[in-house]
Amino acid sequence: MDVRVQEQRLTKKGKQTRDRIVAAAADLMFERGVAGTTVEDVQKLAKVSASQLYHYFKEKRELVLAVIVLQTERVLQAQEPLLSHLDSMEALRTWRDAIIQLQIERKCQGGCPIGSLGSELADTEPTARIEVAAGFLEWEQAIGRGLKAMHERGELRAEADPNALALALLTTLQGGLLLTQVRKDTLALEVGLDSILAHIQSFVV
Amino acid sequence: MDVRVQEQRLTKKGKQTRDRIVAAAADLMFERGVAGTTVEDVQKLAKVSASQLYHYFKEKRELVLAVIVLQTERVLQAQEPLLSHLDSMEALRTWRDAIIQLQIERKCQGGCPIGSLGSELADTEPTARIEVAAGFLEWEQAIGRGLKAMHERGELRAEADPNALALALLTTLQGGLLLTQVRKDTLALEVGLDSILAHIQSFVV
Repeated sequence: MDVRVQEQRLTKKGKQTRDRIVAAAADLMFERGVAGTTVEDVQKLAKVSASQLYHYFKEKRELVLAVIVLQTERVLQAQEPLLSHLDSMEALRTWRDAIIQLQIERKCQGGCPIGSLGSELADTEPTARIEVAAGFLEWEQAIGRGLKAMHERGELRAEADPNALALALLTTLQGGLLLTQVRKDTLALEVGLDSILAHIQSFVV
Repeated sequence: MDVRVQEQRLTKKGKQTRDRIVAAAADLMFERGVAGTTVEDVQKLAKVSASQLYHYFKEKRELVLAVIVLQTERVLQAQEPLLSHLDSMEALRTWRDAIIQLQIERKCQGGCPIGSLGSELADTEPTARIEVAAGFLEWEQAIGRGLKAMHERGELRAEADPNALALALLTTLQGGLLLTQVRKDTLALEVGLDSILAHIQSFVV
């Protein structure tokens, strides 16, 4: 059953238990990776019995899908209210600063919660790959809405392609988060985002 | 002992055996990740005994370091002779096309062999993280040499920062390889690299 459909059919208490399981799994998988997290680890952290966990998730694979959905929500939510209003160079720069600031606060740990799931699962778990791709698409579209608004208002030259620019921005952001995690400094994220923002700026009328 | 020093002290036959072990480990870890690869899997694929493997690598961690060194060599080698001569927009575009072509040939599988090791190990294996960062630095410097040559010859305007541009290019490339792996198409890699190349182009005199 689709993880989102399943979620809607639960009682309030059932939903709370399920949410606790998924949040625990998300935290563990963010820290140790999917392969490094056992269902028993999740059970322990979420303080649920094996049969309770099994009631919501028949196998680890299902739990992983729910984790991808949750991490997508968390990542997009963490960028609000900025992400919904990326329709000026000033807004884009404020968002850039906030993302870098978040990495500094996290001591450059963890990279992107969605990207790291993608890197681990893309070639071995086809269903998880599709769910990660859907998460990225949602993010790309949120970025794209602001750029499209700028384009429609004539603030970006006609030849600018807001969709391509949104995807390029997400691409650079992903590379920047990975390099931040590996280098333990935010320089790659900074110069990467600055380059793509300068490119977007080059289309400003 | 430093993995590179150890390598230099082996006899020819010893080196061949060690190389076979590392190549087998690299292939398995590229396919299944580090966590998904056991020392026994490596032993089997490399056709060596447990004691032979132990002679070269006392623990999996040492083997992982050797894999990072090998994957860095492989990744940089696969981009030659282009990578050593990225000193014109034409050369940069040819290199861009070759990277995209390689991903198409690989059916968008695997992402970046160095980047995926980085994503998996950066927060849990400090020594591996440093080795991955060293691999990225080598790559960044190879890109930077061409851009610096353009800058020194006055082909890029004085205010261009070839080091920052090289890091931004590697950043975008990493994001593009990850998104290619997740989306199973090269569009993100294309628009990402096109954006950063357009940004570099904007400095061309």
